[in-house]
This record gives sequence, structure tokens and C-alpha cells, in this order.
Amino acid sequence: MTNLSGGPRVVAVIGAGVIGSGWAARMALAGHEVRWFDPNPNAEPFLQRIVSNAEEAWKGLDWSVATGRPTRSDSLEACVVDADLVIESVPERLEIKRATFAQIEADASPEAVIASSTSGFRPTQLAEGLEHPERLIVAHPFNPVYLLPLVELVAGESTAPDLIGQAKEFYAGVAMKPLVVRKEIDAFIADRLLEAVWREALWLVNDGIATTEDIDDAIRYGFGLRWAQMGLFETYRIAGGDGGMRHFIEQFGEALSWPWTKLMDVPELTDELIEAIATQSDDQSGHFTIAELEAHRDENLVAIMNALAPKRWGAGDTVAENRQR
Amino acid sequence: MTNLSGGPRVVAVIGAGVIGSGWAARMALAGHEVRWFDPNPNAEPFLQRIVSNAEEAWKGLDWSVATGRPTRSDSLEACVVDADLVIESVPERLEIKRATFAQIEADASPEAVIASSTSGFRPTQLAEGLEHPERLIVAHPFNPVYLLPLVELVAGESTAPDLIGQAKEFYAGVAMKPLVVRKEIDAFIADRLLEAVWREALWLVNDGIATTEDIDDAIRYGFGLRWAQMGLFETYRIAGGDGGMRHFIEQFGEALSWPWTKLMDVPELTDELIEAIATQSDDQSGHFTIAELEAHRDENLVAIMNALAPKRWGAGDTVAENRQR
Repeated sequence: MTNLSGGPRVVAVIGAGVIGSGWAARMALAGHEVRWFDPNPNAEPFLQRIVSNAEEAWKGLDWSVATGRPTRSDSLEACVVDADLVIESVPERLEIKRATFAQIEADASPEAVIASSTSGFRPTQLAEGLEHPERLIVAHPFNPVYLLPLVELVAGESTAPDLIGQAKEFYAGVAMKPLVVRKEIDAFIADRLLEAVWREALWLVNDGIATTEDIDDAIRYGFGLRWAQMGLFETYRIAGGDGGMRHFIEQFGEALSWPWTKLMDVPELTDELIEAIATQSDDQSGHFTIAELEAHRDENLVAIMNALAPKRWGAGDTVAENRQR
Repeated sequence: MTNLSGGPRVVAVIGAGVIGSGWAARMALAGHEVRWFDPNPNAEPFLQRIVSNAEEAWKGLDWSVATGRPTRSDSLEACVVDADLVIESVPERLEIKRATFAQIEADASPEAVIASSTSGFRPTQLAEGLEHPERLIVAHPFNPVYLLPLVELVAGESTAPDLIGQAKEFYAGVAMKPLVVRKEIDAFIADRLLEAVWREALWLVNDGIATTEDIDDAIRYGFGLRWAQMGLFETYRIAGGDGGMRHFIEQFGEALSWPWTKLMDVPELTDELIEAIATQSDDQSGHFTIAELEAHRDENLVAIMNALAPKRWGAGDTVAENRQR
């Protein structure tokens, strides 16, 4: 199997939606040779818009040295034939993913590593039926893929023992923060937290307690600012004072049994609820195009990342340090 | 009742824990005349540390013009006697809060506005037994109170109709983002979202899937960066592309019924779980003192707020704009 550690690699991206396009842009900007393939003949303009966004963003990052651009392949075969790493970013349906893996195995070198971008399926599930299941991992990124550092790395039961270690080094080399997920579970770590917030937010809208804009404001003027630079537990550790987390939990634990949330139930996505959310979102953001919102988001993210890096990026290592490897 | 809109006010802060001290610091730095009272004779050093933190932070903010310092009162009576606004920040127990309100009503002008910092109780609950319940509101801040802009404003059934409007203007004048909560519910808006994340995080630790540091990294290198500048719904609107929120929900809604999360159950806070969390938190952050973590957090928050303000602070109004009122 290809050892991912070390110099620039040939990277093939299969599927050029928002995730695949983001991967292609990041890998190319970080100096890898990138090909991409999407069966949709109209995929090009979308990918090019994401690549332009990414170039614009990386120009603004203090620590980045943007280099290449991804090139389109006419077939999956041409895309993967000499790839060291194949990134799978096709739709989130198991049968589509498995069919794509079969094609990749038919056309790529048996040495090529396969990294799935799935946000939900376990790697052991995905690897069923592969001829070389030892080369498959999940590398789950977050939108916008060319800016957000987090990538969740998950090994399946058959994954080669040293592959996650190599992948960790590889993704750190494209300015990412690899988080190795210790146990295989559906949806991994970050999306489970996001799912919890999403459900509770739907209840707040459903019950007429808050609009989509109220909820967004509650996040971005409050705990969102905390979480851009320090997570949940370290923030609460401070709140516990010199007694630390133990003291904090003793204070806070009781609230767990209070009937504050509606978490026990899943809100039904009725037409009325969907209509309320869609209308409130239009009221909140409808005066901007998606492209304007993207530009706005990216400009903010670049400003925050520059403000935090290199010294202030939490207590741990930094994107800048990763980048300098 | 005192009209809160307009010039500098006399502000009394009752209870000088982490929230009360933060309030005292913010109100004084924003130009109000601030007294504080805490029955604990040893409260002073703690408050002074928070005030020093706040002064240091405001010095770093591009838009701030820090001014005064809070002064200690020897009794609750002396603290509230000529106050326009009394901020209640005593422990989160209903009987303590009600006893404090009774004392405030005995000693303060009947014109004084009372703002409770409670994070859970509804204002109608708090106002029971007050002689002048029309002057009570909840103004719920977030730690660190001298930096985070969000304040949730909640009216009770007896609150005077124009008080929330005045309070909105008043808190905007101390560089905050007032969020008026449309319906009285326990724990309001932001803490319900936080509670959801906290529960799910406890499960992840409980099941050995992630450590406290893993979870913090999943937050601060991923969606935390998104949420410092744009909330949940606006971020997802972008993901929905030109189809907007309606398209996004159609794609994502199905996941609501998947068995991803453990939200249906509340994890039991066993000694083992508390021990695991406390130990992991020590491993993660134990090499820093609480004061070092506070300084680190505040430096990061100031950097982010400067990076976003004034133009880039989301699509709405800005702290800088609020400040200039």
C-alpha cells in the first residue's frame, strides 16, 4: 500500500459536489497533483466556483502558500489510474458508495489508499466487498472543506494498522487538524453534537419560541465565540474555578434531570414546520445570494483564523504549525 | 419606574461570583456608576481579579473606551438605595433569589428596575411575591460577561410593557447584543442548545468514544469556527445552495429519524463517569492554571472580536455599532 507520509502525491477526487470540490481545491492549493471526476457533465462550473473561493480565501490566510489547481479527468479510470490517494465524495447512499469503490478497485493501483468523505457510514460497513479493505479509511471533513481544519479519521476492522498514523501526518500536511476517532460509530463525533443542536433548534422554531435568526444570534454572539477557540470542556473547566471539572459537574450535573429540553422527542418535520423555517430563513438571509453568503463566511473565517494563528489557536498545536511541517 | 434609556445610570450588582463580577466590570467600563455587594467578606479579591481581566480585555478591543471601576458597598441597603438598575446575580436557587428580591424592594426606590441574571428560572416565577413585579426582567448573560455580547432579555407576565424595549437599548449601550426571548420558557434559548451538546458530549465520554480533548478539538477546529460568525441556520442555508433552507431540510431531514444519537436517554452521572471526565480534563488542561486559561480565552476572544468588527460581524448589526450609540 502507498505510504501517504512524505512528499506531494497524486490525489484523485471522485464526486465534485460541495465536499469533493472543497477537497480538490484544498489538496491542489497544498501542493498535491489533483485530478477530479464527476459523471455530471455540468459539474465544472460549480467546482470552479469553489476553487475560486478557496484561492481567494487562501490568499488571505497569513500562513498559506497556495500553489496548484485541480484538473478534470474524462473518466473515473483516467482519474484514479496512477493515484496514490482516492478521495470518495459521492452522494450519501451506501449502494452508490459501494459501486464507486468497486470501480475504483477495478481501475486504480492496488496500492492506492481510498478515503471516504462519508459523514455517517462506518468504515467497516463501507469496506464490505472490497478486494483490499485494508486500504480504506474514513476522512470526514467539514464545510467549507478548503478552510475548516477539522478532519475526522476513522479506521474500519480491516484497515491496515499503520494507515491512520500515516493519514494523520498527511492531512496535517494540508493544514488540517486530524482527529482520530477511537471507536467506529455512526456519524462519528462532531456530527453527533451538531445533530443534538439541530434537533433542539427545530423544537424552538416549532414551538414558536425563537426564529431562525434568534437562534443564529444566540449562537454567534454567545457560545459560538467561545467555541471558535476553546471547546466545551475547557470552557467549563474555567467556570469550575480552582475546583476544576469535578466542581463544575457537581454544580451543573443536577440540571441534567431538569425538564428543560425536548430532547426526548424528535420533532416531526411537518409541512408547517418546514414552511416556517424556510420563510424565517428567507427573512433572515434572503437579501443575500448564496455566493454573497459564502464570501461573507469565508472572509470571516480567514479573519478569525489569522487572528488566532499561530500563537493563540487554543492550547494545542496550530494550523500554522501544521502547515510548516 | 426608571426609564433605562438615556445617559449613565447608577447600577447596583448583588452577588459577586463569576457572573456578578463580570456584570460589575462591564457596566463600570461602559461608563455607568457601579456599586456591588456580596455578603461573603472574602468576595473582594475574586471580583478584583475579574475586573482586572476585563480591563485588560477592553484595552485590547479596537472599539472600546474603558472608563470606571465598580466600588464595594458595605450593605445591600447602601448598594441599592439610589440605584436605577439592580442586577441580581445570587446563587441559582429560587428561595435565595426571592429573599434577595424582598430585601431589594425594602431598600431600593420603587422606581428601580430589577434584572435577574438567572439562567433557568422564568421571570414570572421570580416575580411572585414582589410588590412591584412590573419592574422585573431577566437579563441572562454569558461567561465571560465582560466580553461575550449576548444577553437574553425575558419579560414576565407582569413586566411593564415598555421595559423590554428600554432594556434592549440600555444593554446595546454597554456593547451587548440583546436577544428578546419571545416566550417565557425554562433556560431560554442558548442554554437549551448548550444542554443538548452537553448531554451528547457526556455520552461520548461515557461510551469511551471520545475524550474531553477529542470533543473540544471536534468543536474548535470545526463548527466552532463557523458559529463564531454565522449561526446554524445561515450556515446550513449555504449548504442548501440556491435551493436555500427548504432544499437543505429535504436533504437532511431524514437523518432526524436515524439512530445516531443517544439523545433519548439522559446519561447517569456515575462516580466512574465523573472520574473519567475530571481525569481527562486534567490531562487536557491541568498544566495551565485557571488564571492562565482565562487569560488565554480572553486574548482569543478579543482577537476574534477585533477581526470581525465592525464590518464582518455577521450580516446584522455589530458590537462596534452598538457601542457607538
